[in-house]
Amino acid sequence: MNTQQRFALTPGEPAGIGPDLCLLLAREAQPVPLVAIASLALLAERAQQLGLAIELLAVGPEQWPDSPAAAGSLYVWDTPLAVPAHAGRLDPANAGYVLETLTRAGQGCLDGTFAAMITAPVHKGVINEAGIAFSGHTEFLAELTATEQVVMMLATRGLRVALVTTHLPLRDVAAAITAERLQRVTRILHADLQAKFGIAAPRILVCGLNPHAGEGGHLGREEIEIIEPTLERLRTEGMNLIGPLPADTLFTPKHLEHADAVLAMYHDQGLPVLKFKGFGAALNVTLGLPIIRTSVDHGTALDLAGSGNIDTGSLQVALETAYQMAAATSGKSQAAS
Amino acid sequence: MNTQQRFALTPGEPAGIGPDLCLLLAREAQPVPLVAIASLALLAERAQQLGLAIELLAVGPEQWPDSPAAAGSLYVWDTPLAVPAHAGRLDPANAGYVLETLTRAGQGCLDGTFAAMITAPVHKGVINEAGIAFSGHTEFLAELTATEQVVMMLATRGLRVALVTTHLPLRDVAAAITAERLQRVTRILHADLQAKFGIAAPRILVCGLNPHAGEGGHLGREEIEIIEPTLERLRTEGMNLIGPLPADTLFTPKHLEHADAVLAMYHDQGLPVLKFKGFGAALNVTLGLPIIRTSVDHGTALDLAGSGNIDTGSLQVALETAYQMAAATSGKSQAAS
Repeated sequence: MNTQQRFALTPGEPAGIGPDLCLLLAREAQPVPLVAIASLALLAERAQQLGLAIELLAVGPEQWPDSPAAAGSLYVWDTPLAVPAHAGRLDPANAGYVLETLTRAGQGCLDGTFAAMITAPVHKGVINEAGIAFSGHTEFLAELTATEQVVMMLATRGLRVALVTTHLPLRDVAAAITAERLQRVTRILHADLQAKFGIAAPRILVCGLNPHAGEGGHLGREEIEIIEPTLERLRTEGMNLIGPLPADTLFTPKHLEHADAVLAMYHDQGLPVLKFKGFGAALNVTLGLPIIRTSVDHGTALDLAGSGNIDTGSLQVALETAYQMAAATSGKSQAAS
Repeated sequence: MNTQQRFALTPGEPAGIGPDLCLLLAREAQPVPLVAIASLALLAERAQQLGLAIELLAVGPEQWPDSPAAAGSLYVWDTPLAVPAHAGRLDPANAGYVLETLTRAGQGCLDGTFAAMITAPVHKGVINEAGIAFSGHTEFLAELTATEQVVMMLATRGLRVALVTTHLPLRDVAAAITAERLQRVTRILHADLQAKFGIAAPRILVCGLNPHAGEGGHLGREEIEIIEPTLERLRTEGMNLIGPLPADTLFTPKHLEHADAVLAMYHDQGLPVLKFKGFGAALNVTLGLPIIRTSVDHGTALDLAGSGNIDTGSLQVALETAYQMAAATSGKSQAAS
């Protein structure tokens, strides 16, 4: 890995556990220069509250670090809060601050300052309360990077699950499974497994929509009318797509052993297994963006902010994965140049 | 456990792996008198094919065994085939035979001959081909025992998942989640956990229907309009129901640790995790019947019949669970008498 590549880490909601996670992680050295984009005052105060002696090293456009920070220290691109933040107490006045940290990270990825961004949780509600339309990191970054379609993928060691539909009422899922959407999502998944994960010929297991993948049409016809023909078309382009398979047989060792990713048709078909397997060590990856973005898979946990009683597992795998993706991406571009 | 209680085992489809499973299991002694209801000739022939020296001991209404068969032997209630069966080759001519074995087992459970029945897989298709309407063990036994509503539960060591809806196209699931159905299913689950599993105060985790359990109505309103009020009503009857919870956070140790069962709203919400966790050692239990019935969770695997290359794990847990359920049931009736 090229250790000159810098990475952006956004602690997200200042009243949540994001700042705590970043400080807890800084007790050990990262293998790359990792820059937290946050209020330096906030991090200093939270460190004190947690009883952590972390040295905060101010960096920024005038001077970027070229080597990893030592254990016990953290690079910070200081981004001022609007008003002081208190652990556990949301304040809409800091909504602009949160978005500014994301903008800095996203722009920095676009202009090459950062190789990837890793995000701790934000709180949608408080940003909306501030009068700013915001439906999540993913949508925000899609807009920032002018990306039309993104794909949500959750991952843990040994399993990746991407979703054709995400945050839809169950009632609306079947109608949303169109050939066009399935094709777009599969293409993005396939392309990003190649480009960002360095997998030359990704092997993708695809779930059916219905129980038993429709059981030959007895339990629904979407497999026959939409999913199978779409996969068939994509296979002629050289994609290795297995399915549609029943979701309750797909997630067994026999099938998963040689798979690079699972494509589930909807949220609760794919994520319960992923989170069961990856408890405390799962991450979220946004595919389809022109930048690399990984994220923790949990929320702001306001009640735990400032307590120190939190698990950094998800942020750790989010960081590891971002480093691996950046290495795969730069490896690829070197090979291509 | 009262070792005088007899149990019925139906090997199911004669061309499938059911007979093989029963013979492989008979290599070791069972803790109870277990009676296979099948063609003795079929079992003898399949044992030869598998190279297994299993002594087949004919039993029946004229003489039932009162103690377990020794290792290497199997009690058989001979039930003749219509035509000889060949491993891997379905023959509609034997459909009546398959149903006769189920009828004998079910009737025997009703009249007290057997404490429970354990079923190996049948093949729906070939029974239908024979011109007999048949949609599965569960429906067949519901009719045989004049039961209006049954509930499908899958289980493995450490996890039980019951379903509000089962084999429905995904498109039809939301409309099928009515207060009435949810109430009936929850009552059956709760009552059977008490009566058949000996759990005095079952703790049941209930999934939401929508992703994030509807996220306060933003991702669907069934939780607010149907699920929450129904659970609230049932709680006033003393049931310990937790939820509705998002399916992708419910299946984590924090929630599962103290739960006796999970109630999922539909097939692919609950079963992928169950089968992932219980791979090769999951079983199916039909709740709501006046008899105890457990089953393997897999199909006839026609291509493996006669090969010996199969895993008895699912049948083993199906047997164990049936024995435990029978003990809990008789323990309960003794306590009540």
